[in-house]
Amino acid sequence: MTIEKLITEIKKKQSFLCIGLDVDLNKIPQHLLKEDDPIFAFNKAIIDATNHLCVAYKPNTAFYEAYGLKGWKALEKTIDYLNNNYPEIFTIADAKRGDIGNTSTMYAKAFLEDLGFDSVTVAPYMGKDSVEPFLAFNEKHTILLALTSNQGAFDFQTKNVDGKELYKQVLETSKSWKNSKNLMYVVGATKAEYFKAIRDIIPDSFLLVPGIGAQGGNLQDVCKYGMNANVGLLVNSSRGIIYASQENDFAQAATNSALKLQKEMKDILEH
Amino acid sequence: MTIEKLITEIKKKQSFLCIGLDVDLNKIPQHLLKEDDPIFAFNKAIIDATNHLCVAYKPNTAFYEAYGLKGWKALEKTIDYLNNNYPEIFTIADAKRGDIGNTSTMYAKAFLEDLGFDSVTVAPYMGKDSVEPFLAFNEKHTILLALTSNQGAFDFQTKNVDGKELYKQVLETSKSWKNSKNLMYVVGATKAEYFKAIRDIIPDSFLLVPGIGAQGGNLQDVCKYGMNANVGLLVNSSRGIIYASQENDFAQAATNSALKLQKEMKDILEH
Repeated sequence: MTIEKLITEIKKKQSFLCIGLDVDLNKIPQHLLKEDDPIFAFNKAIIDATNHLCVAYKPNTAFYEAYGLKGWKALEKTIDYLNNNYPEIFTIADAKRGDIGNTSTMYAKAFLEDLGFDSVTVAPYMGKDSVEPFLAFNEKHTILLALTSNQGAFDFQTKNVDGKELYKQVLETSKSWKNSKNLMYVVGATKAEYFKAIRDIIPDSFLLVPGIGAQGGNLQDVCKYGMNANVGLLVNSSRGIIYASQENDFAQAATNSALKLQKEMKDILEH
Repeated sequence: MTIEKLITEIKKKQSFLCIGLDVDLNKIPQHLLKEDDPIFAFNKAIIDATNHLCVAYKPNTAFYEAYGLKGWKALEKTIDYLNNNYPEIFTIADAKRGDIGNTSTMYAKAFLEDLGFDSVTVAPYMGKDSVEPFLAFNEKHTILLALTSNQGAFDFQTKNVDGKELYKQVLETSKSWKNSKNLMYVVGATKAEYFKAIRDIIPDSFLLVPGIGAQGGNLQDVCKYGMNANVGLLVNSSRGIIYASQENDFAQAATNSALKLQKEMKDILEH
């Protein structure tokens, strides 16, 4: 999907909501466990109940790998379901991959070509030649970890590197990589005060923002400092939506939770 | 597997060789493509031909994910085959994972518990709470990326962070994490001159050393600066062994290549 198409969808739906499909079989309604593929059954219900309110879905691969072959199959079925039924949705494989060049190419092919995701999250530690293989895919997007939403972000990401925090070095350096126009960045919502400095470095890039809700981030603050002329934000919520209820009404509860966030986003976009 | 057991095996076999099982269907002998599971058939042949010469195998998950469900199944069969037939072998899932705490727990469970690997490689960018979930597994090992063997290592890893290169900060900081005794580190062989400084920080830890052979590293240099009283090294070779021949004699050729490296290692251990 092109960036232009994503921006069009955001404006049409008045939403920049991304829903994290982090399925834990201990947390889904128990009646779904009788299904052939409970993970996919859950995802399908959540997607059908929320796709009009969001512009992106983000399965985190850990939750699928944790179920081995069944999990990987559920991931395949989920992305196929999205691509076949809701092609206007931007899809993110939250995989946080990254390896030496020829190996990164294998990951890129797996997620962007074979599975058919629009984007994949990538870790920056191994540098340019570990990321560029992902950037080589046309109309696909590489979402580089910059500043994450967890406590451990302060271990290295905010440390001073030659006069500038490491996450800023990552932002700066990545701008010079081949096909850097295909880059987006992960920036945690729990650190809204950082968005201003980030926008000074990458004014135009899309930011994937986790940490709203369960992790404590505030939507107003993120938008105040992080939004640009093309919105430039995908704000993710996972648990707050997909586990809004663990009973038979889980899909309706997910709709309600997503609608609440979408209304907040609509308000922000209108003002 | 305990570290003591690994050291015993190294001394018994006079080898600290790790063989990378990075299977590319374009590079394996073409007659294997007729098999039900060509990836597993290839791995089984390589393992049967080389297990007496090495102490560890390291499948890189990218090469399996690239084949989707079939690849994941081949990975499962490979680790099962190793655990059932060669329990004295140390197994490494080269996955380079890392995510926020509860998500890292899912990855750790997938690789260390469900698949049953002895160890998994992990990226440090997200800090303490992204790595500690892996460290919590008893008699399992977390191999943290410190200094990788690719050109991109110079983008961030060797940059000066508060007076010390980032990879040294990673080594230092990780020593304070819970269950840090379960840590090993990835240090690329292409940078042998760095090993001395690394040993000043982590004298006792095992180092997984990629980059010998195809990537240009030199075994003598690595051992000169990187070896400790318990050897403390696992030196990986992938392409140089598993693709030593692409004809019918591939298994014998793999034996020969592995034997050549094992003899070099034996010489070093004896002097």
